[in-house]
Amino acid sequence: MAFTWRSRIRVVDTDVSTRIHYSALFRHLEAAETEFLRSLGLEYSRWFDMGLSLPRVHVEADYLAPLGYDDEIDTDVRVDRIGESSLTLGFRVVKIDTGELAARGQLVGVCMDVQNGKSTPIPPVIREALEQVQPR
Amino acid sequence: MAFTWRSRIRVVDTDVSTRIHYSALFRHLEAAETEFLRSLGLEYSRWFDMGLSLPRVHVEADYLAPLGYDDEIDTDVRVDRIGESSLTLGFRVVKIDTGELAARGQLVGVCMDVQNGKSTPIPPVIREALEQVQPR
Amino acid sequence: MAFTWRSRIRVVDTDVSTRIHYSALFRHLEAAETEFLRSLGLEYSRWFDMGLSLPRVHVEADYLAPLGYDDEIDTDVRVDRIGESSLTLGFRVVKIDTGELAARGQLVGVCMDVQNGKSTPIPPVIREALEQVQPR
Amino acid sequence: MAFTWRSRIRVVDTDVSTRIHYSALFRHLEAAETEFLRSLGLEYSRWFDMGLSLPRVHVEADYLAPLGYDDEIDTDVRVDRIGESSLTLGFRVVKIDTGELAARGQLVGVCMDVQNGKSTPIPPVIREALEQVQPR
Repeated sequence: MAFTWRSRIRVVDTDVSTRIHYSALFRHLEAAETEFLRSLGLEYSRWFDMGLSLPRVHVEADYLAPLGYDDEIDTDVRVDRIGESSLTLGFRVVKIDTGELAARGQLVGVCMDVQNGKSTPIPPVIREALEQVQPR
Repeated sequence: MAFTWRSRIRVVDTDVSTRIHYSALFRHLEAAETEFLRSLGLEYSRWFDMGLSLPRVHVEADYLAPLGYDDEIDTDVRVDRIGESSLTLGFRVVKIDTGELAARGQLVGVCMDVQNGKSTPIPPVIREALEQVQPR
Repeated sequence: MAFTWRSRIRVVDTDVSTRIHYSALFRHLEAAETEFLRSLGLEYSRWFDMGLSLPRVHVEADYLAPLGYDDEIDTDVRVDRIGESSLTLGFRVVKIDTGELAARGQLVGVCMDVQNGKSTPIPPVIREALEQVQPR
Repeated sequence: MAFTWRSRIRVVDTDVSTRIHYSALFRHLEAAETEFLRSLGLEYSRWFDMGLSLPRVHVEADYLAPLGYDDEIDTDVRVDRIGESSLTLGFRVVKIDTGELAARGQLVGVCMDVQNGKSTPIPPVIREALEQVQPR
């Protein structure tokens, strides 16, 4: 059951090619990720309150169709994998007006103890909420 | 006696207009500001070590000539004003290949005590170093 | 009669100070500006269709109260001044949870003929729509 | 024979975690890529003059050691693969003060005919210059 976040490509997201700058896509993925986690009651303030953060260890994206200024997009977020301490989220970005799959992305974060800067197991309360929405 | 920082407009700095996005100029001003302060021995790590930071309270910029992808620029930094707790830095951005004044900017920061989040006088050691390079 | 745009401060908007980076505010002002113009039927695609664009000649912002990660803000947009070829928009950013005025901003654009890169009078159809919402 | 580009993590590159925001790394990779191509006489203006551009179809990065404000980094660029129309560049980011490998990245671009927006073979003059520096 995917979560979807709608946003628009802004001027600041574009570059001299007249299309989106590849790095700007990550701002949209981040908004989608944040709202996805909030929808599960797992907003980052909860992680911080538990002394945890989720730094990225890997990110990637494929650009499949051009996105340009003012294009509206829907970003689907899903849980790809829950490891001992890692969390992999997958993203699909659809261009609203054509229905095209415009981009795909994946972010891998590692649950980190903010005190010592080391990875730590994802707490059960977070794991269980994520498992509930993980595709089977 | 102005400090000058050279940089280049990158793809990510441009937008669909094919010119620099106005907000991208501030990344170049920030690099110039950081290196200017370092040249005076006032890099931000020193401020942090004294429990201080310098949040912006006002920023502004004028855009006088178009800047585009790969243009090289020289950013001059000068101390415009040293208040009790505020510091105003002025910037002039010259496009190298034409010598045109392409932009002007001004940043006003306030010396803040990180502990309580309140403004605090600029310490003498910082004030004196800034006064040495302040135009008369 | 102000137009209001709601958004949230994202991780990418923050910096090592733990607060918003001053330049990130401009991304939020831009979204507000774009949606304000769209609400008047003046989306930038219409300007482009008329061979026009609206490059910035001046921008400024005041930062009045700290904004941090995940803070929700309302950005009010109003027409401050319509010149022969210049348009000045004013912004007020309110932090939702406290009701504080967190920032103010102003953007001055100049109507430009894309063909020759020179300023040109704002066309009557745009001017009239802007005048309708200009505060008196 | 790798090309190396030195840069510094700026305030705008960091986020509330006090470390670099993962997307900011791509600005440094882009500067390194641009200067690498310039060192081969293949600056993007030459591509544009031939009616070509090089939009990204895939990007990825691994984050191996924390990077924070003011850290100096060396970014090595190498040609990983030259396809019929695709070009894969690889990046290694070393933190100067510790010598640690802090990040790795890969960008895949596709040579595009700007006129029709379709992929087109990399011209021999570009291919040959890239092959000269490709590791064997």
